[in-house]
Amino acid sequence: MARSLPTDSVGIVTPEKLHFDQPLALDCGRSLPAHDLVYETYGTLNASRSNAILICHALSGDHHAAGYHSAEDRKPGWWDKCIGPGKAIDTNRFFVVCPNNIGGCKGSTGPASINPETGRYYGPDFPVVTVRDWVRSQARLADALGIEQWAAVAGGSLGGMQVMQWAIDYSERVRHALVIAAAPRLSAQNIAFNEIARQAIMSDPDFRDGYYLEHNVSPRRGLALARMLGHVTYLSEASMRAKFGRDLREGKLSFGYDVEFEVESYLRYQGHSFVDRFDANTYLLMTKALDYFDPAQDTNGDLAAAFRDSHSRFLVLSFSSDWRFAPARSREIVKALMDADRRVTYAEISSSLGHDDFLMPIPDYVRILGTYLDRVAREVGAHD
Amino acid sequence: MARSLPTDSVGIVTPEKLHFDQPLALDCGRSLPAHDLVYETYGTLNASRSNAILICHALSGDHHAAGYHSAEDRKPGWWDKCIGPGKAIDTNRFFVVCPNNIGGCKGSTGPASINPETGRYYGPDFPVVTVRDWVRSQARLADALGIEQWAAVAGGSLGGMQVMQWAIDYSERVRHALVIAAAPRLSAQNIAFNEIARQAIMSDPDFRDGYYLEHNVSPRRGLALARMLGHVTYLSEASMRAKFGRDLREGKLSFGYDVEFEVESYLRYQGHSFVDRFDANTYLLMTKALDYFDPAQDTNGDLAAAFRDSHSRFLVLSFSSDWRFAPARSREIVKALMDADRRVTYAEISSSLGHDDFLMPIPDYVRILGTYLDRVAREVGAHD
Repeated sequence: MARSLPTDSVGIVTPEKLHFDQPLALDCGRSLPAHDLVYETYGTLNASRSNAILICHALSGDHHAAGYHSAEDRKPGWWDKCIGPGKAIDTNRFFVVCPNNIGGCKGSTGPASINPETGRYYGPDFPVVTVRDWVRSQARLADALGIEQWAAVAGGSLGGMQVMQWAIDYSERVRHALVIAAAPRLSAQNIAFNEIARQAIMSDPDFRDGYYLEHNVSPRRGLALARMLGHVTYLSEASMRAKFGRDLREGKLSFGYDVEFEVESYLRYQGHSFVDRFDANTYLLMTKALDYFDPAQDTNGDLAAAFRDSHSRFLVLSFSSDWRFAPARSREIVKALMDADRRVTYAEISSSLGHDDFLMPIPDYVRILGTYLDRVAREVGAHD
Repeated sequence: MARSLPTDSVGIVTPEKLHFDQPLALDCGRSLPAHDLVYETYGTLNASRSNAILICHALSGDHHAAGYHSAEDRKPGWWDKCIGPGKAIDTNRFFVVCPNNIGGCKGSTGPASINPETGRYYGPDFPVVTVRDWVRSQARLADALGIEQWAAVAGGSLGGMQVMQWAIDYSERVRHALVIAAAPRLSAQNIAFNEIARQAIMSDPDFRDGYYLEHNVSPRRGLALARMLGHVTYLSEASMRAKFGRDLREGKLSFGYDVEFEVESYLRYQGHSFVDRFDANTYLLMTKALDYFDPAQDTNGDLAAAFRDSHSRFLVLSFSSDWRFAPARSREIVKALMDADRRVTYAEISSSLGHDDFLMPIPDYVRILGTYLDRVAREVGAHD
């Protein structure tokens, strides 16, 4: 039975798909032949095509950032708390575009797609893609949509890394770069967690060297482990303490290995529900894109030099309880921008949940985002 | 070819083994039938039997705390930097005893031992043991050695938890309790990391519900993953950054999934070398003992009440860079002891490596430990 959707929702949305015949050159030296890009849009592009905002998704995200796919849909898109009529990213003013990145598993060409050259699943033969590759393919999407310049490009976590790359590679096409809960590059600890996740997937016997789809199996155990590990790094220690503490599911110790503590139950649920909706090869690709990301790779590690020629204006936001990409990492970005004499606004949001706070409707966060985009709306002539 | 051992080493040591015919009652309600306890001793017990120090080992530790097993041995025992003639735990003055805990895999009865009742490996049928069980079995070892009271009981991490339990259950037998890099109980985050490690082991198809020894296999992939994950929590982010940074093994990206970053190489080495020397069922038991440990379980969560009747004097040490059991966790112990009006000395050692710093010869750490034990030596009439 259909129910009424919230009034501040973009409502029911239908993903669109663009097919690209032109091969896409990739950083790895290979190129992706004809491929698809799936995306969603919310709001209306104005006549001067000046009010478009690009949203870049993070590791396990996709193109479904807001609204519902049907009236029966239980959950809205992943950033629905910030995107909608009257919300911080106001669809009454802006035309919002969110693609699923290549290498993904939600409709854009990725490892679970058929390789047109072989007629078989790409699987592990899908090329390792980089943040820069994604930005290159998103620029083509902008071309196809007739968007010369984005009013803003925005994203959290791995999404924020794409924003930085946009502001370096195509700064004339990015008025405002909204870099949220990101880091200029991964630390050794970040890479270590990613590597353990990859090892979990690749050492699962059902991984079959990545050709699991052909064998009708799936490295479910490994992917669930990877997801559980991810979750521990997305949550602050304090929030885990507040949410689960040392609470026992049955109120007493069982002296066995079934679920005992509430936190174990939570992790197992997160792990096992993930494997039904995500592709393991895509997970591997996403973690590699994270590891490889280094906007200063062409400037000898000098991030300020990388930003020096950027015309974009920056909003950098971090969250106090985030230990995956802690505020100190955002301040590195801010410092580089200031050293490069670029325009940057920075705020550290007081928060409790951890890295996932960038998805939460924290009042200070939503207000800062909304106020900033109000100004952007005036600049670009976006109107209610 | 034999080489000369360092002059401040306890030299070549031979483990000893005690057989206990009397069953040991366990917290889980079961009891362990006849069993063995392997231990090492360094130094000499004085005539008044007043100079004995018990060392409790941590998760992956064992009875081999100091010295070498042969002249060809490349590595000394795990706490050799602190135990030896003239060292902080001075074997010229003290008689040092270190057992391998039951459930272990280095000679004391554990899951890889033969169950005398069935003639088969215990495997997963070995009972889940607790810190309190270990302390109970160590008390029997003290009885067997004729040690009425330990001059000190000392341990780091899970070892420090045993020290606290000693000081609660047998405080009249513990003059000084040295609780190092420990926590009063695990946080939800700590439990989460342990649970992921267990899931990695138990979801390895070669785990065979724990009966892998009977099948002549071993859950090597899962145990390696567990160990890799442990290592990330033992090291501080800053030390990983300093040690590995984002250094690439081959100097350039390979766009593949072999080892690329130095930190990946380190983790894989740590994981794979561990599986040759450790039993997966023991790893599971150790993590459960950590999760279950709660010295305030009989006092409604009131740690001060748990300590109130303890006669022991406490030295609590923490390390500034330890994020697994951060200094704040040690301060909880100190606060409870002060609330209980017990005698406690506390120091936070400025360190960089992380949790593993408790094994390192940090000058401040070694000096504090040495000075404290100097006083203990005078108290108990231990002499050079």
